Order: sequence, then C-alpha cells, then structure tokens
Amino acid sequence: MTPFKFELLHTSTQSRARVGRIHTPHGVIDTPNFVAVGTNGTLKALDNAMVSNIGLQLMFCNTYHLLLQPGPEVIEKAGGIHRFINRNLPIITDSGGFQVFSLAYGSVADELKSKGTKKHGGSVMKITDEGVLFRSYRDGRSILLTPESSIATQKSFGADIIIPFDELPPYHIDPQALQLSLDRTHRWEKRSLEAHLKHPNGQAMYGVIHGGIDDALREKSCAFLSQLPFDGFAIGGSMGKTKGEMVSMLTSLLPKLPPEAPNHLLGIADLTSLAACVPLGIDTFDSSYPTKAARHGTLLTPSGGMKISRGKHRDEFMPIQEACSCFTCQNYSRAYLHHLFKAKELTAMTLASIHNLHFMVDLMASYRQKIFLNLI
Amino acid sequence: MTPFKFELLHTSTQSRARVGRIHTPHGVIDTPNFVAVGTNGTLKALDNAMVSNIGLQLMFCNTYHLLLQPGPEVIEKAGGIHRFINRNLPIITDSGGFQVFSLAYGSVADELKSKGTKKHGGSVMKITDEGVLFRSYRDGRSILLTPESSIATQKSFGADIIIPFDELPPYHIDPQALQLSLDRTHRWEKRSLEAHLKHPNGQAMYGVIHGGIDDALREKSCAFLSQLPFDGFAIGGSMGKTKGEMVSMLTSLLPKLPPEAPNHLLGIADLTSLAACVPLGIDTFDSSYPTKAARHGTLLTPSGGMKISRGKHRDEFMPIQEACSCFTCQNYSRAYLHHLFKAKELTAMTLASIHNLHFMVDLMASYRQKIFLNLI
Repeated sequence: MTPFKFELLHTSTQSRARVGRIHTPHGVIDTPNFVAVGTNGTLKALDNAMVSNIGLQLMFCNTYHLLLQPGPEVIEKAGGIHRFINRNLPIITDSGGFQVFSLAYGSVADELKSKGTKKHGGSVMKITDEGVLFRSYRDGRSILLTPESSIATQKSFGADIIIPFDELPPYHIDPQALQLSLDRTHRWEKRSLEAHLKHPNGQAMYGVIHGGIDDALREKSCAFLSQLPFDGFAIGGSMGKTKGEMVSMLTSLLPKLPPEAPNHLLGIADLTSLAACVPLGIDTFDSSYPTKAARHGTLLTPSGGMKISRGKHRDEFMPIQEACSCFTCQNYSRAYLHHLFKAKELTAMTLASIHNLHFMVDLMASYRQKIFLNLI
Repeated sequence: MTPFKFELLHTSTQSRARVGRIHTPHGVIDTPNFVAVGTNGTLKALDNAMVSNIGLQLMFCNTYHLLLQPGPEVIEKAGGIHRFINRNLPIITDSGGFQVFSLAYGSVADELKSKGTKKHGGSVMKITDEGVLFRSYRDGRSILLTPESSIATQKSFGADIIIPFDELPPYHIDPQALQLSLDRTHRWEKRSLEAHLKHPNGQAMYGVIHGGIDDALREKSCAFLSQLPFDGFAIGGSMGKTKGEMVSMLTSLLPKLPPEAPNHLLGIADLTSLAACVPLGIDTFDSSYPTKAARHGTLLTPSGGMKISRGKHRDEFMPIQEACSCFTCQNYSRAYLHHLFKAKELTAMTLASIHNLHFMVDLMASYRQKIFLNLI
C-alpha cells in the first residue's frame, strides 16, 4: 500500500500557485485539483464507474450522511467505503461536524458555504465539550458525535484522507464567542488526531484551520495546528460573506501554512473562486457546484455557463463545446440536451453532470499547465 | 439501406410460438423480443449509448410527446429521430392516437394499458371523421391530428416502423359504438397507409387490429386490415380487464393473422403476460414496466421481483443476480443499491433500470432458445 505523501513539483514565479502530486493508498491526486462531492457515496445522477472514467481523482463523501444511512456497520462489513461504493480511486471523508452544526444554526450556517444546505428536520439536542448529541432524521435515535466517535466512524469507512471533528460557529458570532469556539475546535482536533494516531491505518488526516475572517485568529489556528503531526491542512469555517472577504483572508493565511503539506479549501470551487484561489496556492477544492449547476441545466463552457433550456439551443445540433472530448459532447447535441431538459428527463441531469465534471477535470489540468509555465 | 423484411426461422412443435428476424434499415430485431419504451427519445434515467450496449434491439418513441416537444421541425432538421437522439438501431413510433384519446377518455383509458398514464392537463376539443383537434399542454396551441398529419409527422421522424392513426375507444363502450369506432379506425388506418405509400421512404407500417375483447370484431378487423399492404400487424385497443380476457382474445386472434408478417402486442410486456403470450405467437412486446419497476426499486430476477429497499438487502454484498452479466451486477452490490434507494439518489434509478432491461434482453433470448428446442 502506497503511504500518503505530498510531492511539490513546481511553484510559479508569478504567484504562490503550485503544482504537486498527492500519493494515497488508492492512487495519485494531481494538484491543484477539483474534488467532486458524492455525499451519499455517489455523485448525483452518475455512477462511480463513469466518475472514474471522467478522470476525477478525489471524491468527497459525507460522514454525517453515511453515518445515518447505511451506517458504519454496513460499510465496515462491505470491507470499507471503496469496496462498498466500488471506487478504486482516492476518497476523502469529512467529520460530520459541518452538517451537525448546520442543524444547530439552521439558516445562519447556510451563509457559510453553499446556500442549498438541505434541512432534514433532524435536531441538535446538546453541545458540550464532549461532543454533540443530535437526533437522527432517519429513525429518531439520538447519536453522540464526538472527536473520538467521528474518527472511529471515518476509520471504519477507510477513506484515504480524513478530517478531525471541529465546531462550526455561525458567521454572525461575537469575537469572544469565536475565540471560545476556536479553542474548543483545537481541543477537538487534537483529540481527533490522537484517536487517529492510535490506529494510523494508512489514512492521512488534514487539520482544519478555523478563525472565520479574523486574520489573527486564522494565524493562531494555523500556528496551533501546524505544530501537530497532521498530514495536510484544510481551511474551514466561515469564509466571509463575499468573495473579497474570502480572498483577503486566504491571502493572509496561505503564506503561514507549512508549504511542504498539501492544503484543501472546504466547500468552495466555483469558477471565480478557483481563478482567485489557485494563485494563492490552494491545492484542492471541493464543491457540489458543477453537479448542482448541471442538474439545473447550466452547462460549463470556457465562455461561461450555458443555460441549455433557453430557446436558442432548440435547434443547435453541435455539441455543448466543439473541442470537448466528454462522453456527452461526443454523443449528443445541444438540441437533444435542450429537449431532454424541456421534457424533464432524468437522462438530462446525467449527461449534463458528465459534461460539467469533465469540464472541471480539463480546467484543473490547464491550471496545472499554466503554473508549470509560470503563466499564473 | 436494408429494406424491411421478416424472416420466420422456426415455429415450435408445442405451440404457436415462433422465432424470427425482422430486418430494418437500422438493423435486425430477433423475435420474440421486448421493446423498450423511450417516450421522449430516451429511456428514463438512461442514455441511448447505454441502451445500445444493453442489447435492446428496438426502441419505442411516442409521436404525441415528440410532436409537442421538441416538435417535428427540430427532429427533421436534425436529420431524423435516429440522429437527433443518437441511436443507430431500430426505432418504432406510434401514431399519437393513444395519448390523444387518453386525454379524451381520461381515467377510462387508463384501464386499457398501464394505470400510470400521465395527465398533462391538455384537452381534446373535437373528434370528427377528419381527425382529433386537441390543445397542447405545452403552449396551449390547438393541434389537429389526422391520419395524414400523424403519418407526415412520423415520416419527418423517420423511425423504421410506423403506426397508422387509430381511434382508441374506452373499455366501457356499448357494442354498437365499438362497431362504429372500429369502422372509423379502419377508414383512418387506410388513409394512413395511403399517405404512407405516397412516400414509402424505407419505413415499414404495421396495421393496428382493434375490436376490444369481442372475438368477432377482432376477426373482422383482422380480415379488413390484412388485405391491405401493411408490413406487419400490431394488436391495439382494449385487451380486457384481466389477463384471462386478454389471453382468450389473443388465442382466438393470432391464428387469423397472416403468419408471414411480424406482429406486435401494444403496451404489454409484464413477465406473466410474456409467459402467456409468447406461446400464442406474438413477435414483439413493448412496455415501460421494466423501467418503471426499476425506478420504484423492484429488480427483476428469475425468482421474481426483488424489492431492494427491504431491510434484508441492507448488508447483502452479492450482486442482484450472481450469474448476471449486466453493468450493474458486474459493479455494484445489493447493499449499495439498497443504500442508494434509501438515500433517494438518482443513480439508484439508473443502475436498477440497466439491470431490469438486461434481464429482459436475457429473458427474450432464452425464450427464443426454448422455442428453437420446441420446449414451449
């Protein structure tokens, strides 16, 4: 089994943008790269064989969802998440914290990441230093999620990269409460790491830097976490209300991260953010944006999002992009996709998702090439 | 371009079951066979490349739906239905009559075929000997569907097999009204055939035998239509309220059909009906049953329908069927499919549909083999 390792291949002379290669037990991830989100162990409207064919190197699965359905016993009995979902390429799981705290803070948490966070009608019953007690939206049983139980669950899944349990404070929080939350997050992450290192198991763990948009707190978080033996660092918590706030925070934070470790920006990978953050030196980005946009009929192209349901595509018999080598563009026309969306066929969502993900794969490859050439 | 031709290869010594081969401009259909329903030019939750891989030789598209969306101009401009939907194998279209009369007779028409006929809120404005005037559910414009306009539309689509315009009387109709309806249907079918033969175009046309469950009317319909130069015969209209009524009607009708022409049973292909009707000599059967069952989590197996959402499949890590060579069984376990259905993932519908259609392809191949061996 290949141990986890990050190789830094090139840093641009123009910016902090860098090209690297993350080695994991299930294969390589070229960086910078886009990470597709497969919450329940599948990308929506696609199967994992197709996802592998598209060339997506890392897939993000959500511990909260998989904990409730099918539950860790089933995944463990299957021989781990890779075997359960039949994916032989790298997988990353989160801690479950994000979704649990979304339940606690409701719509406020929506501000943090995508606006579309689903409410499942579950509820948080108690938050203590021990962890979070919440009620399952599936069967009503109460579940205590702690640093130790999150890591035990993620170990039973066996993803290549795992994430420590953290607290996710709402955006509207006073500075003192944010400081207290950060301290608790650090205690939780340390406990998570200790639980992980008792049974290291070939998995890598990324510490999650918090601190909201307060540069000093981010620096403090970075200083605390980077002296612990994490394999990489994720940037989590509130990224601010605007892209400007996020870019400002990341511009200040990135130079403080250990350059020899890979980093990951949690939940952000829209095209504008990628363009802004690749030059800052972010290695991987996850987002459900490309698949969500696809399901709503927005197809990604170099000249922007194509709303395929618009009347002008009704009789355009060329592919979405002439030069695109994706399965959808090789087989179907804009007119047919327009028709499938108009007719509300599920097939439309599948074909659009294939194209958008292939677009992301191509886009990230072109970022890597430009960095090699010091063009960004 | 291969002209349409039916080869009768073998008739069982045990029954009227027969094996044949229908040659069409887009390839061969081995009979008896199952015909998949792709109403809007796609099978639900699948794309046409996957459908071809599964080995489905004939696909049924609905003229009514395609007439309203995307409209015949778009399909004609694309170069025909095969190019529009990227399917290089045989396609059959119906006349649009079934859906238009479902609008007129509402729930009564539901009795005729599957119960799930969708109501689109469209409405029939006038039925005359000329044809049917109805309002489009899409844009409210009124459309006159006549034998001539149905054939013109089907010619612009260019399917390998087309169907004449017929009237679809409700099941609860008095004998005199049924007789009048049959006479009108015969006039409409003759006009359809004449319109077709003016521009024969390589397409084949199947006459549709009507007469409900009245053996004498079915015989009369058969006598009238079989003296016209149709390329094959479909059996349409009411099949009765029970399978017993249908089998009784077909047992009486089949020996009266010209044996040298292929025949098709419209809208019926559940497993029980197949077992009952293959020995009667039916050549092709269409139904949305296998794909609809798949989307609702019923997986077809030799020992019956497997309701994959049931708790007992939660940790079954074998495929749906051990011996099945379908993409789904080759890649995924029952436990994973169970999980995808529980998690309401669209992927579940795709993977289940692939298996059910592959099951139908295998089932029909085994019927053909058994007929060759005179086992049925």
